[in-house]
Amino acid sequence: MNEVHATLIAELENTWYTRIPITKAMQAKVQSFDGNVLVVEAALEPNINLHGTAFAGSLYTVSALTGWSMVHLQTRLRGVEGSIVLASGHIDYFKPVKENLVATCVFGDQEAAFTRLKETGKARFPLTTTIPAAGVEAAAFKGEYAFLRGH
Amino acid sequence: MNEVHATLIAELENTWYTRIPITKAMQAKVQSFDGNVLVVEAALEPNINLHGTAFAGSLYTVSALTGWSMVHLQTRLRGVEGSIVLASGHIDYFKPVKENLVATCVFGDQEAAFTRLKETGKARFPLTTTIPAAGVEAAAFKGEYAFLRGH
Repeated sequence: MNEVHATLIAELENTWYTRIPITKAMQAKVQSFDGNVLVVEAALEPNINLHGTAFAGSLYTVSALTGWSMVHLQTRLRGVEGSIVLASGHIDYFKPVKENLVATCVFGDQEAAFTRLKETGKARFPLTTTIPAAGVEAAAFKGEYAFLRGH
Repeated sequence: MNEVHATLIAELENTWYTRIPITKAMQAKVQSFDGNVLVVEAALEPNINLHGTAFAGSLYTVSALTGWSMVHLQTRLRGVEGSIVLASGHIDYFKPVKENLVATCVFGDQEAAFTRLKETGKARFPLTTTIPAAGVEAAAFKGEYAFLRGH
C-alpha cells in the first residue's frame, strides 16, 4: 500500500471500530487496498454458525461493509465529503466457507457517477463483492450505495 | 407463549448464543412466537453505525437469523430434524432505524413444502421479514431457505 492509501485505511479501520462496533466483534480488518481493489477479512471464529462454517449474516455484513468502505475511500481520495447509505443488497450463497471471510470489491470505472456527484451533489454506486472458499466463489454480493455530498 | 413454544424458544436462543456467537454480540433475543409469527429483537447500541442508526449489515443479519429460526422452529414443531441453509437473501432499506432492530417473520401456509419434504427429504422455504422504524416499514428482507432432512 502507498502512503496515502495506508493513511486512509488506518482512518477507515478506526472509524469501523469506534463507530460501527459490530465490525470489532466480527474481527474485521483491511487486508489490502491498491486504489481500485479493496480486500476485507473477518476471522472465522466470531462469525461461525452451527455447521462450523461462516454464518450467512456475517458473509453479507462483511460484503456490505467492504462496499461501503470502497465508496468511503473513493470519495475521500477525491476530497469529497458526505454520507453513504446502502439502499439495497442482494447475496447468493454458493458454497459453505470454512476459512476466514475474505471479501473482494473492485471499483472499476465509475466516472459517470462522479460527474453526477459534481453536478447534483448525489450519486449512486452499484458495487459487487465476492467471497471465495478454497479458491472458488462461495458468495456474491451486489449492493446499491447512495452518496449524498455534505457534512 | 404456550409451554411447547417457550421450550423451543429457550432451546433456540441457547443454540444461537453457544453456536452462532455473533448473535450474542448483537444482543439478539426472541421477543415473541405464537406458532406462526416470530419476532426477534436486537439492541441498537451494539448494532449502531456512524449515523447513530442501525447498521445495514445488522439489519440484514437479524432478518436472516429470524428466517432461519422460523424454519428451525417449524421443522422442530413437526418433529423433523435436518439442516437449514440460506441460499440467497435480498434486502431493501427504506428508512433509517433509530430504535432497537425488531424483525417480524410470518410463516403462513407452507404445507406444499412440507409435503415435498416428506416425499423427497428436501424443501425450500421462501420467507419475508420486515423491520419497522417509528411504526413504518424501514427494511424488507426476502430469503430462500433450503432444508435437508437428516442429522
